[in-house]
Amino acid sequence: MPRFALTVEYDGAPFAGFQRQDGLATVQGALEAAILALTGEQVSLRTAGRTDAGVHARGLVVHVDLSRDWPTDTLRDGFNAHLRPQAVGVLAARAVQQNFDARFSAVRRHYRYTILNRRCPPILERSAVWGVPRPLDAQAMHEAAQRLIGHHDFTTFRSSSCQANSPLRTLDVLQVTRQGEHLLIDTAARSFLHNQVRSMVGALKRVGEGHLNSDDLTAMLAARNRAACPAVAPPQGLVFMKVEYREQ
Amino acid sequence: MPRFALTVEYDGAPFAGFQRQDGLATVQGALEAAILALTGEQVSLRTAGRTDAGVHARGLVVHVDLSRDWPTDTLRDGFNAHLRPQAVGVLAARAVQQNFDARFSAVRRHYRYTILNRRCPPILERSAVWGVPRPLDAQAMHEAAQRLIGHHDFTTFRSSSCQANSPLRTLDVLQVTRQGEHLLIDTAARSFLHNQVRSMVGALKRVGEGHLNSDDLTAMLAARNRAACPAVAPPQGLVFMKVEYREQ
Repeated sequence: MPRFALTVEYDGAPFAGFQRQDGLATVQGALEAAILALTGEQVSLRTAGRTDAGVHARGLVVHVDLSRDWPTDTLRDGFNAHLRPQAVGVLAARAVQQNFDARFSAVRRHYRYTILNRRCPPILERSAVWGVPRPLDAQAMHEAAQRLIGHHDFTTFRSSSCQANSPLRTLDVLQVTRQGEHLLIDTAARSFLHNQVRSMVGALKRVGEGHLNSDDLTAMLAARNRAACPAVAPPQGLVFMKVEYREQ
Repeated sequence: MPRFALTVEYDGAPFAGFQRQDGLATVQGALEAAILALTGEQVSLRTAGRTDAGVHARGLVVHVDLSRDWPTDTLRDGFNAHLRPQAVGVLAARAVQQNFDARFSAVRRHYRYTILNRRCPPILERSAVWGVPRPLDAQAMHEAAQRLIGHHDFTTFRSSSCQANSPLRTLDVLQVTRQGEHLLIDTAARSFLHNQVRSMVGALKRVGEGHLNSDDLTAMLAARNRAACPAVAPPQGLVFMKVEYREQ
């Protein structure tokens, strides 16, 4: 069966997360319904990531097997026609080999978290940023963030309901950049634990406010204790940006 | 009475436009209610612009007279507390002189219109852009746009319900720039007619698609006839960006 990879954009706000759940609006449910409507095939798609409720994506990749070949532009446009007016779109479709797996072939996942740092609450961007009124020291945040780079036990920074077998992960990038009133927190790793990005951002925000410093972050990591983590950042500031694959 | 200028951001989507209308949610209504809640004063504010339903603002300026003096940060934060959770916020408040008038002291108004030019409909930006699937020639649009610069009778490009006494306006800037899949159309003038920006953008989109050229735009302007204008661009792509004042 021909296999297709789809690059997907969605707004997390109207969905109860990515993963299909009976009776709830989910991104996976919307995509599989559009695939059924266009192709007549009931498929179960595989995804590079299962984001939580409220988290967005600009370049998530999923794959599906279809019983016949399709022009990829027809797939993209057809899926989009059937997805309307839901807040999910297919940016691109491409034919991939049988050994391509949206989840297991991924070698790097990229997320961006955006903070709007000003006195006025977010208005135009209220579904896309975390509004933090107190001035944040982006340089201090960036420096502290480097303490988390590398291969570590991230127990402190994962949800207590995280189902990964191991709390060990290798964090490649965790970069904090100020652009005017926006703080962009860009991170990349082969894979992340459940709530890992939002947990790290929650801790970095406390650094930016001056309540924690780099050494505190090192100590939190070493504690390997979820209770050592400050409040998790809210979902709407987080975007799954892109996935890198071996074959690329 | 002390006079204050407020710089305002709002999302046009939930509002029936800027101007107060009985029984409808409007930006002016929300602002005046917040002013009443904070100060106990029933005021009628003056605005640099009255945007249509669905049009946004990042830096609209209004002014109000209050019976006593206030620290400007207290005004900003107090108004924002009372505006929540509505999609209007006060970015800044400042004390101004009695001869300052948000409307009549303005010497230049700046708008930006954003088109998302890709096959997939807008998803994350669906309330902030006009989605145009066919490839647009931004350079051709920019060149044609220059035909509208200067002092002209803009009858072709104003709403038939426009209440301005004169159709004469001086257009200072109309610039089309591509940034990846986004086309930014930036425009500035002392003042605009009703629907003028969206009418010009609607015509430029036809140029970008290859249906019209620069000479067609010149002929449309010379026609001074509303019927010569192509379809007006939808409101959600338009943002009132900022106002320049004499005193600045």
